[in-house]
Amino acid sequence: MFQHSYKLRVRYAETDRMGYVYYGNYATYFEVARVEALRSLGITYKELEDDGILLPVLEYKAKYFKPAFYDDELRIETKISQKPGIRIMFEYSVFNQESVELVKGETTLVFVSAANGKPTKPPVHIEACFEQFFN
Amino acid sequence: MFQHSYKLRVRYAETDRMGYVYYGNYATYFEVARVEALRSLGITYKELEDDGILLPVLEYKAKYFKPAFYDDELRIETKISQKPGIRIMFEYSVFNQESVELVKGETTLVFVSAANGKPTKPPVHIEACFEQFFN
Amino acid sequence: MFQHSYKLRVRYAETDRMGYVYYGNYATYFEVARVEALRSLGITYKELEDDGILLPVLEYKAKYFKPAFYDDELRIETKISQKPGIRIMFEYSVFNQESVELVKGETTLVFVSAANGKPTKPPVHIEACFEQFFN
Amino acid sequence: MFQHSYKLRVRYAETDRMGYVYYGNYATYFEVARVEALRSLGITYKELEDDGILLPVLEYKAKYFKPAFYDDELRIETKISQKPGIRIMFEYSVFNQESVELVKGETTLVFVSAANGKPTKPPVHIEACFEQFFN
Repeated sequence: MFQHSYKLRVRYAETDRMGYVYYGNYATYFEVARVEALRSLGITYKELEDDGILLPVLEYKAKYFKPAFYDDELRIETKISQKPGIRIMFEYSVFNQESVELVKGETTLVFVSAANGKPTKPPVHIEACFEQFFN
Repeated sequence: MFQHSYKLRVRYAETDRMGYVYYGNYATYFEVARVEALRSLGITYKELEDDGILLPVLEYKAKYFKPAFYDDELRIETKISQKPGIRIMFEYSVFNQESVELVKGETTLVFVSAANGKPTKPPVHIEACFEQFFN
Repeated sequence: MFQHSYKLRVRYAETDRMGYVYYGNYATYFEVARVEALRSLGITYKELEDDGILLPVLEYKAKYFKPAFYDDELRIETKISQKPGIRIMFEYSVFNQESVELVKGETTLVFVSAANGKPTKPPVHIEACFEQFFN
Repeated sequence: MFQHSYKLRVRYAETDRMGYVYYGNYATYFEVARVEALRSLGITYKELEDDGILLPVLEYKAKYFKPAFYDDELRIETKISQKPGIRIMFEYSVFNQESVELVKGETTLVFVSAANGKPTKPPVHIEACFEQFFN
């Protein structure tokens, strides 16, 4: 299993007229969290794309327990609990500064070759990065 | 069962560098689709809030089959298949102008009293709007 | 001079915790308004890009007089008052359903060749579309 | 004069199909930059609102010289060059990791009493924060 923690602060633009973070904006928070999780492993998502591998989202789930508010400093715990193959699943938990769990999420992404648009195995150097966490 | 269809056009702001509609933006599309579905029943979400009823999202799911692109004219089919109580569930299917199904989604919302923050039954006039579709 | 009018409805996602449309979201409204203004002339911005012409924004100005609120139906008046050359300037006024002017904006865009990244004259068929409005 | 520097990384959600940061998203970057600039002075924008002072944007200008790309680490230099009164003007310059200036912006905001919606002088403790920079 691989785990990573990332903090970000709620922007005004991300709130809605209820004063809550708009429910759709967690998708962006999860994007940032998984990109930083990968970066901590030495995998840069941008380089992946520049190398001709896209990683679109296939499936997304979120459960909202409590709202996040403007200026909250959120901590996002990201977890990969299954060894990534053609697909890679990330699980997320969002906590506020009082360590209250606000939202749980899950995204499944697929490695796709930009050349032919077909699902593909992750590049060898990426598989190697995950090796130590799953055996 | 209640069904409603709504069309919207993909904005440039909603695309990402893959050229796809960013996966997080479907949450906004679904918001627009359910608000228009309710409006077609004579329920204005804004009035609901002005009357002290909030309707936050509890749960959200999406499956992405194919990307939507800039300027695509999307058709969103919205369905309420269970009679709404304290919770109301909307199911969505997004189609492009060639009637290809791109995304399926689901949101569960809860009626909440703005006064005390607690889940509440929907107002009587709203229950009445749904009556004809479920019996 | 060329003028065009377009209506759109404020989405919940576009509001902020003041209950106003977030000031940054007018840039998207102006994008939609100018794309629809061009479409009314037979110019599809997507086709332009597919033909290798990009049209990035060089300059943007907005003055905010009054807020727009959730579910407001906004009317955006778009005007091109100078004959477009390498640059094209759009002026916008946003009105609510009571015809109160809320925001004034202005964007200057430049025709750029995707091939070499350099500013370029608009394609002949686009110049022709504008011909009747400026002489 | 008061100056502050803030770094942020471009999110995937903020790019568009040109591969650039969408021109409308700089408004959010500027929001974050000015909020952090104020925080460095001991002024929390959230507390200001909780104290009944709103600070809506009256005027916004941006000039785009070069695009920012996905994953760029941007540095935003924020400057207040005139002593704030009822209005406060922020000037911004956005640089990428190669210190190339990408965008210049300017926002004028106004202190407004939430109680009566009227422009108001900033609270005394906020005026005091600025005192040392302007004399």
